[in-house]
Amino acid sequence: MTNSATNLRLKLPMACIILEVIIIILFGALVQYDDETDAKLWHKEIANGSSNYDNDFYYRYPSFQDVHVMIFIGFGFLMTFLQRYGFSSVGFNFLIAAFALQWATLMQGFVHGMHGGKIHVGIESMINADFCTGSVLISFGAVLGKTSPVQLLVMSVIEVTLFAVNEFIVLTVLGAKDAGGSMTIHTFGAYFGLMVARVLYRPNLDKSKHKNCSVYHSDLFAMIGTIYLWMFWPSFNSAVTAHGDDQHRTAMNTYYSLAACTLATYGLSAVVAHDGKLDMVHIQNAALAGGVAVGTAGEMMLTPFGSMIVGFLAGTISVLGFKFLSPILEQKLKIQDTCGVHNLHGMPGVLGAIVGAVTAALATKDVYGDGLLPLLRNYPASFQGIRQAISLAVTLGIALLGGLITGFILKLPIYGAPPDTICFEDGIYWELPGEEGSHEELTTVRTPDEAEKLNA
Amino acid sequence: MTNSATNLRLKLPMACIILEVIIIILFGALVQYDDETDAKLWHKEIANGSSNYDNDFYYRYPSFQDVHVMIFIGFGFLMTFLQRYGFSSVGFNFLIAAFALQWATLMQGFVHGMHGGKIHVGIESMINADFCTGSVLISFGAVLGKTSPVQLLVMSVIEVTLFAVNEFIVLTVLGAKDAGGSMTIHTFGAYFGLMVARVLYRPNLDKSKHKNCSVYHSDLFAMIGTIYLWMFWPSFNSAVTAHGDDQHRTAMNTYYSLAACTLATYGLSAVVAHDGKLDMVHIQNAALAGGVAVGTAGEMMLTPFGSMIVGFLAGTISVLGFKFLSPILEQKLKIQDTCGVHNLHGMPGVLGAIVGAVTAALATKDVYGDGLLPLLRNYPASFQGIRQAISLAVTLGIALLGGLITGFILKLPIYGAPPDTICFEDGIYWELPGEEGSHEELTTVRTPDEAEKLNA
Amino acid sequence: MTNSATNLRLKLPMACIILEVIIIILFGALVQYDDETDAKLWHKEIANGSSNYDNDFYYRYPSFQDVHVMIFIGFGFLMTFLQRYGFSSVGFNFLIAAFALQWATLMQGFVHGMHGGKIHVGIESMINADFCTGSVLISFGAVLGKTSPVQLLVMSVIEVTLFAVNEFIVLTVLGAKDAGGSMTIHTFGAYFGLMVARVLYRPNLDKSKHKNCSVYHSDLFAMIGTIYLWMFWPSFNSAVTAHGDDQHRTAMNTYYSLAACTLATYGLSAVVAHDGKLDMVHIQNAALAGGVAVGTAGEMMLTPFGSMIVGFLAGTISVLGFKFLSPILEQKLKIQDTCGVHNLHGMPGVLGAIVGAVTAALATKDVYGDGLLPLLRNYPASFQGIRQAISLAVTLGIALLGGLITGFILKLPIYGAPPDTICFEDGIYWELPGEEGSHEELTTVRTPDEAEKLNA
Repeated sequence: MTNSATNLRLKLPMACIILEVIIIILFGALVQYDDETDAKLWHKEIANGSSNYDNDFYYRYPSFQDVHVMIFIGFGFLMTFLQRYGFSSVGFNFLIAAFALQWATLMQGFVHGMHGGKIHVGIESMINADFCTGSVLISFGAVLGKTSPVQLLVMSVIEVTLFAVNEFIVLTVLGAKDAGGSMTIHTFGAYFGLMVARVLYRPNLDKSKHKNCSVYHSDLFAMIGTIYLWMFWPSFNSAVTAHGDDQHRTAMNTYYSLAACTLATYGLSAVVAHDGKLDMVHIQNAALAGGVAVGTAGEMMLTPFGSMIVGFLAGTISVLGFKFLSPILEQKLKIQDTCGVHNLHGMPGVLGAIVGAVTAALATKDVYGDGLLPLLRNYPASFQGIRQAISLAVTLGIALLGGLITGFILKLPIYGAPPDTICFEDGIYWELPGEEGSHEELTTVRTPDEAEKLNA
Repeated sequence: MTNSATNLRLKLPMACIILEVIIIILFGALVQYDDETDAKLWHKEIANGSSNYDNDFYYRYPSFQDVHVMIFIGFGFLMTFLQRYGFSSVGFNFLIAAFALQWATLMQGFVHGMHGGKIHVGIESMINADFCTGSVLISFGAVLGKTSPVQLLVMSVIEVTLFAVNEFIVLTVLGAKDAGGSMTIHTFGAYFGLMVARVLYRPNLDKSKHKNCSVYHSDLFAMIGTIYLWMFWPSFNSAVTAHGDDQHRTAMNTYYSLAACTLATYGLSAVVAHDGKLDMVHIQNAALAGGVAVGTAGEMMLTPFGSMIVGFLAGTISVLGFKFLSPILEQKLKIQDTCGVHNLHGMPGVLGAIVGAVTAALATKDVYGDGLLPLLRNYPASFQGIRQAISLAVTLGIALLGGLITGFILKLPIYGAPPDTICFEDGIYWELPGEEGSHEELTTVRTPDEAEKLNA
Repeated sequence: MTNSATNLRLKLPMACIILEVIIIILFGALVQYDDETDAKLWHKEIANGSSNYDNDFYYRYPSFQDVHVMIFIGFGFLMTFLQRYGFSSVGFNFLIAAFALQWATLMQGFVHGMHGGKIHVGIESMINADFCTGSVLISFGAVLGKTSPVQLLVMSVIEVTLFAVNEFIVLTVLGAKDAGGSMTIHTFGAYFGLMVARVLYRPNLDKSKHKNCSVYHSDLFAMIGTIYLWMFWPSFNSAVTAHGDDQHRTAMNTYYSLAACTLATYGLSAVVAHDGKLDMVHIQNAALAGGVAVGTAGEMMLTPFGSMIVGFLAGTISVLGFKFLSPILEQKLKIQDTCGVHNLHGMPGVLGAIVGAVTAALATKDVYGDGLLPLLRNYPASFQGIRQAISLAVTLGIALLGGLITGFILKLPIYGAPPDTICFEDGIYWELPGEEGSHEELTTVRTPDEAEKLNA
């Protein structure tokens, strides 16, 4: 199955080691502890009367760990639904996430403001790096099964960089709010990945079609990913919102949005799926759309009522997207979106951006009290709404253009991409168990006689 | 396998969408942010000198997330032990939990006191909603494999409502303590579910008998559920106890109770199981009984010593229940308890209630100091003990009566319940992978030749 | 398969119940709530002006839960890679961890200082007990598949005791720093286990060789363990470091070390593995070495830059160890190290100890400010470096000697150890599913015809 083209003995080590050495050198030159991780500086703050609880670690670390689980377990296992691509789904997810969080620390550090030529790191930079990583993993979902790990690393280098630029424009230049990343993470990651998938279109992918589906146990592994993403999404959306009511409210709005989204997903799935049965693809994905869709407005006074409406809509469009839009995307637009990221992150991300713009535009002193100032910074609410809307347009533009360019770079025949006939197959990049073994080792099947003997 | 009776195309969407629309309308009319999630009110508190740490979010959110994992991963995967019911176990668990937590917010809000006609929501209502959901999931365990998702939703509507009523009587009217829910969650959920199972008794269930057991990998998936429940039970029992020593002590007592329970479970399992071997059913379930049994007394000065004795007893009765009582329940009392919830939640819950009553009755100022007041509220300890005991009786009464009525409602032939011949089978409600595929897609089996070719 | 020698009906219950009864008696005689878990004492502190947040519970409980997940899910599932040893991997891990944490509470209580003849317990003793348990589980990895649960319990009794002694010498007598346990946990556990494996050497183990490998799904289960260990290692290393900058810095250093380690692991794996493919054994294990290797220096001012270099080195030596050293250990030194703990915990642990000694020796007031005092306690930095180095030597000595003696004790033919022909096989100690069933129940395989019928 392997040949010189897909053999990674030189390509992957070179990519990994060169990238890591560059990162280490840049960290050595540029990265410093911030006030809260530096022994000297923090002890000075303590001497000046601070309490250890003032250290942001205690506000943010539990949220960080939840986000971390979403990135490594959530995304990783969500993609194990493919019958023979579990090693790659979890394994490449692991690799590119471990790379992207380092690279993101540098890129976000560059654009978000250096301190005397240095990048300061602490718990908030860790969360932001994980967020940026999430965006790369969304794009990974669009090209899952059709790319080599070297391609994925190259994609990560470019995507992280553009993510940081877009995030800077949206949050800092335009002053938009997007704590849970409906725009910066989900919309960006989805449309970037879809454009890459478009450029990497494989007309003969149907040769691997029989592997582009699940088996019973692979769907159960995927549910581990789904459920972890679902449970910890409240932490994701609230991880970097302001202390106090903001974090509290964001987590709660997300909780309600997801619950309503789940009911919509089950209801719609039974309507559109074959023979009135439920479809695992919908449950694994669409039930999460409610988290995406309150990624911008979740920190605002959206109310549980509003959150539920948004979640319900998100689940609905997501299921309908899987049923009706994905086939069109593939056949007409030649976008082979393996995981359906357009339905889970793309459309719900745009919905979330719109909901965010509208909710911001409706903000009043009467509702927010002194909480209005941090939201609007002395501008009128309508102005904030417009900034939110422009941010969506900018995000879409950078994502599509960036994905286009990245796609062409990834098309170069030097990265060991799999041929059309053996996509969605671990064997091409992984030593599979049972390689030198007997039949028995390859299976968990046992005849009754054997079992009886074992249990004799 | 499907026919018009079990086809869900109309029934499930109608149930999901009607229920969700009702919930959204009620949330719109009745639910408000509480002081700690409302921007205006919290900023007023900040202006009056509060610290953001005073926001209960920081005391409770880590516990909430642990409870959330127990509800969605713990219960969901614990039930995947059945060989062909993994999609339904995780998937219906997901559906009814997402529904129940919303419905519980409303029902608990109604009975626990409205604020000017409004239900106030924040982190504590989220935890309480998850707790109530846990009770429904316990009942789900008793009827697992024999009910349609529509039946489960109807059961949830009624059970959540009665849970809220019982919780109100026990905690507010009777003033009992039950932070970890030995009575309100475990005893209630178990006996409610057992009574439902009794009414839904299927004399011909042995036609599906060959599917009512595990396979090797399904038992491993179930262990994910078990271990998560075991690990996070300290958070469950302490999630709503008072700040400070209470939360700390409750978590620790639960930790020790579970550890002792586990040793008892392994020891007893090897005694009673076939041929001196360990039985996965015991390990998956009885090892958790220690968490149930300190759900009432865990917050009191039970001591690690006392907790271990209780845990040891709970593990013992649970294993013995699986071995000796479950067959009797099925044959004599016609209660087909799929997951053995009587052994994990029923008997240990009653044990926990009794331990709680005794421990409360023995409370003294000498041991509790100023901590006695919150426990007894100026009543004598013996009085508190009696209130605890009455609470157990009330809980049992409401659970059994409620389950009886619910069982008859669920017996109506309109919910698409599976026939006796195809219980414990995902295929009836789920599109199974490989449906239109070849043999290869249906299995993970591979011959040595194929494997060799793959790895060539 | 079973015979009287491996039948556990008497042996395991006796071991479990006798040990648990001893523990309960000792807890009754010796263990008390500490100031923060005792109702009376904590309410006195509150009355004296303490805030509930001063209760260490809120600083440490989230970290504790992450550590708890590592112990029970992380270690447990990491070892499920064997094709027919998943029940035992997760199940015996569960058993010995539940035992060891209780025993560790007593042993660590004895040596770390009694309070008026009593052992005081709270969140920190819970974390320390889990840490000690981790060490036992590392040793378990070396003998995985070749030992009975009774042997494992006996090993735990001895190892926990010696762990407590060594920890006391290293941390208290020698005053070394080792918050994440590069020495006390990883080095100790690995060399103890390797020595036990050496004494228990089985010359005819190749008779079970065909079972000493993975299958496709077992490798995916193992990745659950790997990823959880990887994600929560920052919590592990920082769980008992000082509040404030120390916890914050330790978590961050570990995060960067692990990320760099992962890139090194993937790069090296493709270099050394068969045919330029990735090897799951490396990914599952070596990617974690970065957490081990900053277990001592992580709390110091190692910097992200330094952490990454250490992580990169750790991943490199770990992969090379699996490829080149493990075969030598087995063939020349007769050490059959099932999980390769020498590569994941042994060498990276020693590396971590050396890095810790060097980093401590280089500490200056200029870098640490007032944070220097807690590190060096008024001694010169070089002196601290020497103490760290001596601690490594002491740890190695106690581990090797202790493992030697323990190995001989475990060699007694009274514990029901498996014969050489049926190592790595659950069936010897567990009732396997499908025991009395038909072929269909034993497999998840389904012919297309059957599937069609199901989905008809």
